[in-house]
Amino acid sequence: MTILAYGASAANQPVSRMDITRRAVGPHDVQIEILYCGICHSDLHQVRSEWAGTLYPCVPGHEIVGRVAAIGAHVDAHQPGDLVGVGCIVDSCQHCAECDDGLENYCNGMVGTYNGPTADAPGHTLGGYSQAIVVHERYVLKIIHPEEQLAAVAPLLCAGITTWSPLRHWGAGPGKKVGIVGIGGLGHMGVKLAHAMGAHVVAFTTSETKRADAKALGADEVVVSRNADEMAAHGQSFDFILNTVAAPHDLDAFLQLLKRDGTMTLVGAPATPHPSPNVFNLIMRRRSLAGSMIGGIPETQEMLDFCAAHGITADIEMIRADEIEPAYERMLKGDVKYRFVMDIATIGD
Amino acid sequence: MTILAYGASAANQPVSRMDITRRAVGPHDVQIEILYCGICHSDLHQVRSEWAGTLYPCVPGHEIVGRVAAIGAHVDAHQPGDLVGVGCIVDSCQHCAECDDGLENYCNGMVGTYNGPTADAPGHTLGGYSQAIVVHERYVLKIIHPEEQLAAVAPLLCAGITTWSPLRHWGAGPGKKVGIVGIGGLGHMGVKLAHAMGAHVVAFTTSETKRADAKALGADEVVVSRNADEMAAHGQSFDFILNTVAAPHDLDAFLQLLKRDGTMTLVGAPATPHPSPNVFNLIMRRRSLAGSMIGGIPETQEMLDFCAAHGITADIEMIRADEIEPAYERMLKGDVKYRFVMDIATIGD
Repeated sequence: MTILAYGASAANQPVSRMDITRRAVGPHDVQIEILYCGICHSDLHQVRSEWAGTLYPCVPGHEIVGRVAAIGAHVDAHQPGDLVGVGCIVDSCQHCAECDDGLENYCNGMVGTYNGPTADAPGHTLGGYSQAIVVHERYVLKIIHPEEQLAAVAPLLCAGITTWSPLRHWGAGPGKKVGIVGIGGLGHMGVKLAHAMGAHVVAFTTSETKRADAKALGADEVVVSRNADEMAAHGQSFDFILNTVAAPHDLDAFLQLLKRDGTMTLVGAPATPHPSPNVFNLIMRRRSLAGSMIGGIPETQEMLDFCAAHGITADIEMIRADEIEPAYERMLKGDVKYRFVMDIATIGD
Repeated sequence: MTILAYGASAANQPVSRMDITRRAVGPHDVQIEILYCGICHSDLHQVRSEWAGTLYPCVPGHEIVGRVAAIGAHVDAHQPGDLVGVGCIVDSCQHCAECDDGLENYCNGMVGTYNGPTADAPGHTLGGYSQAIVVHERYVLKIIHPEEQLAAVAPLLCAGITTWSPLRHWGAGPGKKVGIVGIGGLGHMGVKLAHAMGAHVVAFTTSETKRADAKALGADEVVVSRNADEMAAHGQSFDFILNTVAAPHDLDAFLQLLKRDGTMTLVGAPATPHPSPNVFNLIMRRRSLAGSMIGGIPETQEMLDFCAAHGITADIEMIRADEIEPAYERMLKGDVKYRFVMDIATIGD
């Protein structure tokens, strides 16, 4: 099957329209007509070869929502016409401890939705800036949100699960004080989710102008992290801090805010290292600095169902496919509230 | 009560004999005739003012064992003649969440055994390089080891509990693969304790010459950490790594050896920062980098009782009080197997 997609033919080329092919539907495959695809920072890094190893042509996109167009003979869980999603993962080894635990995101054989190894042409996976995708049923999520919310559901597939997984793993909920550092694509989901989980949520932003917005997202308190007095008032008080900021910054300023046995978890990796954290801040209160990457398939489904039950979606700005390059530029400036979503119907225009 | 001690009158003065006083025994106090005191790296840093805030005269020593000489009117748990120990803590607020949880080591009002605030003369606490000490009963530990092992029990009060607490907290035991980085005063106790807890213990040393020693201490395997192939063979395999090395070093080399959800805990803080750890190593397997400081009083008692039951003591070299300065020099070179202990009876010689 040949379809239209948006991708780059080389690192120095803009993302533009191209033809790609999708494999025939195998017995365990689901063929999806893509309706919307969220735009993640990773897309930009990958397509511009800012990370090592980008393979071209490169079609980004791993916040995919759409409708089942066809299913393989052995697929029971999905039916043609169903609304479904695909996130960052389209394959894994399916037999290691991580896969057995439903944490395919930590499988050594995890195959990313783009730039991952595959037998399909052209030898690496091509993502969701495209009209269709064929994915093994294990990695296809059910969407039970109302159809009119579908575009705003797309970012849940990466930004949602990337914040949900650590919030759940480290026990965000009633009676817990949870910080969310950075109010962007990931952070705005972190605030919404932690609030819905019942935690007392404190949003950290460097920008005074985001104070009202963060409250509107569900933060109980907002701290402008450049204000030392505001920061000090929260010393030793957090059970958990989810840090979504990938730019190098002073981790100690946040580690000091953790209670004894508190954890700060990073979900972004900076291109150059953070200043080395002060070991005393860890030792003095038995604190932990941790990392978390996306989430597993079962917990992604759990997150989607939770969001549907709580009426949670991402705050999005819709773009046409041919607006992707300007959208990247705005994203680099943090000028988006809070996630761009591509209307895949415009690819053919 | 005026007694003899070994301490320094100023940062540029050697540790030498001096007179100090101890308070009268209060209703909740235990007066202890000190018999032995272990020599910790912290002693040297503090007495030489290598850390901020050393108060003089400075009498180090927080690995104290001895015999109860007198008790206050309200003391029930200890009797004159009992063998007892005092570790790094001689007071705390006694009413915060940490104290309520028996984790006085994390109390904001924790008073160290030396250089801590006190109403006693001279206004700061004086440690165990001395003939006697008077301590609130809450911070006095029972010792049930045979009396002839008493000197080798002393290091359990700091080196023992500092390794015991994180090993217990992070679940070292049967079925767990545990690494101990650095085979010195702390590390040699970590190997013994983790082995006795039933974990599969891998000792990491920079020195080929310590391979046989580490096995004798109880390590199932020994890895010379300078050998990249040996290190790589243990990739993604550890549940927990206890890192006792305070000198700045490459944390990533060890973080990479942790399984998904594994933790490496630091118990030493370097004078200058470690190279900043690679965030990808945390994110890719949901790993944690943590810290731990000493341990609480109830877990110190638990550790002492466990050690008595398992016949565990520290490996020590006994020194006379007037050998303390040369002992410090040897300690700085790592030339001790594995802990110096001062024979307090020699203070009066």
